[in-house]
Amino acid sequence: EIVAAAETLLDDGIKPLKGRKAIVTSGPTHEPIDPVRYIANRSSGRQGHAIAAALAKLGAEVTLVSGPVTIADPVGVNVVHVERAEEMRDAVLSALPVDVAVMVAAVADWRVASAADQKLKKHPGESIPTLALTENPDILKTLGHHTMRPKLVIGFAAETQDVESNAKAKLERKGADLIVANDVSPATGIMGGGRNSVKLIRRDGVEQWPDLAKEEVAERLAALIAERLR
Amino acid sequence: EIVAAAETLLDDGIKPLKGRKAIVTSGPTHEPIDPVRYIANRSSGRQGHAIAAALAKLGAEVTLVSGPVTIADPVGVNVVHVERAEEMRDAVLSALPVDVAVMVAAVADWRVASAADQKLKKHPGESIPTLALTENPDILKTLGHHTMRPKLVIGFAAETQDVESNAKAKLERKGADLIVANDVSPATGIMGGGRNSVKLIRRDGVEQWPDLAKEEVAERLAALIAERLR
Repeated sequence: EIVAAAETLLDDGIKPLKGRKAIVTSGPTHEPIDPVRYIANRSSGRQGHAIAAALAKLGAEVTLVSGPVTIADPVGVNVVHVERAEEMRDAVLSALPVDVAVMVAAVADWRVASAADQKLKKHPGESIPTLALTENPDILKTLGHHTMRPKLVIGFAAETQDVESNAKAKLERKGADLIVANDVSPATGIMGGGRNSVKLIRRDGVEQWPDLAKEEVAERLAALIAERLR
Repeated sequence: EIVAAAETLLDDGIKPLKGRKAIVTSGPTHEPIDPVRYIANRSSGRQGHAIAAALAKLGAEVTLVSGPVTIADPVGVNVVHVERAEEMRDAVLSALPVDVAVMVAAVADWRVASAADQKLKKHPGESIPTLALTENPDILKTLGHHTMRPKLVIGFAAETQDVESNAKAKLERKGADLIVANDVSPATGIMGGGRNSVKLIRRDGVEQWPDLAKEEVAERLAALIAERLR
């Protein structure tokens, strides 16, 4: 039903999201350890960028806040490039108010408590450094409980185990309307790859989507957003 | 046959390194924290790849051991792709014996002592993890003191302060013949950029090269290697 709706919308060039504003985050964040080292993750940005493009195709005015990725900016989208989770949070909040927020970026949960100004050196005989971490801002949760909360707040959950139960807990905790959950265990090839196999976790149930190209996941999700905002 | 003839004609440049073998390392290493997170650094691989290409151009049989980079493999070079420092060490040692080793990669000094099998989760109310690190193999030092030590062992030193004194100490400690030192403070734009400003630290003195394209640094260094191996 959603597929049929998506095809109709895209084929006819209907712009059901015309006049609507969207924020999408995408890619990893890089959290500095010192001037040359950082903590990163394997997110490629392919899923988030595809969602930004699909929303723009349906007529939405899209701001894409992207962490460091090697893929091209999607056309027809306003792209803000950031590195750290705090920068991503600031860019997202300054794009409010919007109708829908889709938080796809794999934001680092933690950053190094005090990043060094100079490159950490290995000195023979000296002890090995320990990286003390501190919690990063929770962008999805901030949006889910914000006074300018978007009508629709959608999060992504990248899990390697207990995908569904972790995602359900996340939905509640973050104040989100929908969590798109996927299993990013290395064996799945999802992180960095071209395909995705997602579960939609709503307050009233769970829907498993088939294995699809990330562009197809994006089109289906954009159609669903258009439906919900109608 | 005609193609071969054409190549011979085109290749009438002098090949002072014909019959010589070289190993070059390039790029960063990625040290896993868990299945999705890792520690990285800002090395782009541009300098190391350019050196591998320059040595090949002078006739050397080059093995390039590259960490994760987004630039293309140089042509005419045998490229081995690795992620972690330990993998890089293994690839380098299995390419021995060689006449010259140029260790350009920004190898992580430390890795996470015990990388997690599952994605580290943020649990509300629970304490924040600390990353205990452990020392990575020192590939340059291993080569500098190896029973199959290459005739020429060249290291790179990426520093953000006390560039020359740090590089001199490194030359001694690692058993290298030459250290190419550069200042990778973010303000210099060297890490990830197209140009480089290096100091050559030899046992008998220091030579400052002018600001050059990374390809020019590579050509000069290849010429110097050819001179030393003559």
